Amino acid sequence: MTTIANNKTLKDLGEVGIIRLIQGKVSQKLPSYVKKGIGDDCAVVETSGERVLLVTTDTLIEGIHFTARTLSPEALGWKALAVNISDIAAMGGTPRTAFLSIGVKPDTEISFIESFMAGFKALADKTGIILAGGDTVESPSSAVITVTLLGDCLPEHVVYRSGARVGDDVWVTGPLGNAAAGLFLLQTKEFAAPSGYEPLVRAHQRPMPPLDVGKALAESGLAHAMIDISDGIAKDLGHICEQSVVGAVLWAASLPMSSPLLGLAAEAEKEALQWALHGGEDYELLFTASPADKEKVQSLTAKHSGRPAVKVGAIVREDGILLAKQGTEVPLESGGYLHFCK
Amino acid sequence: MTTIANNKTLKDLGEVGIIRLIQGKVSQKLPSYVKKGIGDDCAVVETSGERVLLVTTDTLIEGIHFTARTLSPEALGWKALAVNISDIAAMGGTPRTAFLSIGVKPDTEISFIESFMAGFKALADKTGIILAGGDTVESPSSAVITVTLLGDCLPEHVVYRSGARVGDDVWVTGPLGNAAAGLFLLQTKEFAAPSGYEPLVRAHQRPMPPLDVGKALAESGLAHAMIDISDGIAKDLGHICEQSVVGAVLWAASLPMSSPLLGLAAEAEKEALQWALHGGEDYELLFTASPADKEKVQSLTAKHSGRPAVKVGAIVREDGILLAKQGTEVPLESGGYLHFCK
Repeated sequence: MTTIANNKTLKDLGEVGIIRLIQGKVSQKLPSYVKKGIGDDCAVVETSGERVLLVTTDTLIEGIHFTARTLSPEALGWKALAVNISDIAAMGGTPRTAFLSIGVKPDTEISFIESFMAGFKALADKTGIILAGGDTVESPSSAVITVTLLGDCLPEHVVYRSGARVGDDVWVTGPLGNAAAGLFLLQTKEFAAPSGYEPLVRAHQRPMPPLDVGKALAESGLAHAMIDISDGIAKDLGHICEQSVVGAVLWAASLPMSSPLLGLAAEAEKEALQWALHGGEDYELLFTASPADKEKVQSLTAKHSGRPAVKVGAIVREDGILLAKQGTEVPLESGGYLHFCK
Repeated sequence: MTTIANNKTLKDLGEVGIIRLIQGKVSQKLPSYVKKGIGDDCAVVETSGERVLLVTTDTLIEGIHFTARTLSPEALGWKALAVNISDIAAMGGTPRTAFLSIGVKPDTEISFIESFMAGFKALADKTGIILAGGDTVESPSSAVITVTLLGDCLPEHVVYRSGARVGDDVWVTGPLGNAAAGLFLLQTKEFAAPSGYEPLVRAHQRPMPPLDVGKALAESGLAHAMIDISDGIAKDLGHICEQSVVGAVLWAASLPMSSPLLGLAAEAEKEALQWALHGGEDYELLFTASPADKEKVQSLTAKHSGRPAVKVGAIVREDGILLAKQGTEVPLESGGYLHFCK
């Protein structure tokens, strides 16, 4: 066991460091029924049946992940489930049962829970998810929401982060940066009453992970590696590269950006590309596939989501991620949202 | 949908009211693969295999469930897992994989995580549980821990809260009130350096749910209904009665109380019986069985835990719980720890 000097804090370690510390502390030989533990979008656990279990859990804390200004109670209920659905989608699975832990202050209005549950149920109904349990506790200050979502998949269809191959194309299922631009709108007073920017706000508040596309990509065998874009494509492509022991080139000019995003960037004098690369919370899927399957990928994704996936780069042998932009290639810093680092 | 006046708060509703509100908002016909949703110690979900999945989740929040004074980081790690193991034990299952969500302040010392994980791992190793995933996030103030635990069981062995039959004996697997007395010691300055009271403090900080006993009772078919004692026997027996549509009589003189508990009650001028009835957090099992199986229950529990279960009451037809004490029977208020009600 590594022991680190006692006076250091989690700020010194960062989120990745903390996860590594936890992994180190429990490092153990996984039993054969745990096909994947820490380190992918979901854990993959064998049951005695033919399908493997997919398990993911995500926590949203008031003041960190949301405020009353950025998410209404109803949007919070929707989003708390959506971020977990996105992880199941990224493995190619089907979500089944959700477990909801809510911690709130005793002086919270009852209507908060009513609205929260309305948002949660709207998305659960849309995706066939059953709320099967949870915990309801008092919190002294911030509202705290943890959703654990269980799904399943045939083991031969599960798509891991680790399957990218040198020469693969890199694809995304939809526009990037909208959610980050939506958050900017919600947090910035002068843009508080946006017009024409509703899709950006909606992307932040009501993401709809492309569950059907994820499942179709997995069942077709077209996706070699897949992840959901929760921290920004730069950071999430980094996860694929790390787990697959490859590198990647991203083509700046190919990244799909919406008209409202470009419009807002111009109006607010922001760089749209930064939102697209590092904004996070897009909950689109990022995957790699063989160049030979380009047309199959386009038609399959178009069929299941109404819009074809967009090719944004390639997997290469050399470590790291390069951003190709205006004829030059520069190393891309991961730079997505980092917990514990201000 | 019922809608409740907007200006009311969760304090007006109480924990049970909030859970009913949530249930009402998602009320839906459960698909056949969800054998039990909200309302027992675990959800019971069919997989395509021969064993059903048991799922439970519990959240511990600083300032509500613990403080730095009552639980060291190491004890917190142990207890966050133990309270979930207790729920699996109460269904008669075997715990398998745990998912840990930690929210802590960025200025938390790294040693907090190291110690927390040491406690978590000590109990995980003892019980064969694998940490298979989780989430690590920043919290603006209180530390927040959610553990979701998955286990399994043959469907014919699962013991629900709803199986108690009129005439059944009511049993507990171990002493009651120790954890509550331990908490009292930890919170009360004049008893801060207890001598001879270590078992009480240990019961609060390092509960060890009787997992083997729960499994043996389930496999033998002896237990008709079972629950873990987390809120106090009065409240938890109430859950069995409500779900089984029966009542119960508890015999005050039969409730197992330890010598340290009786000693502390005398010294601190407290009523030991109140701790035993309402203290909560004992994480022993409460179950009902046929009177004809009395000796089998005693020998089976003795074999698996070193001490026989103790018969503390009987299931009766009439609603409610009566406390039989010194020749009289009085209605027992549930009165365990109630979230949201100060």
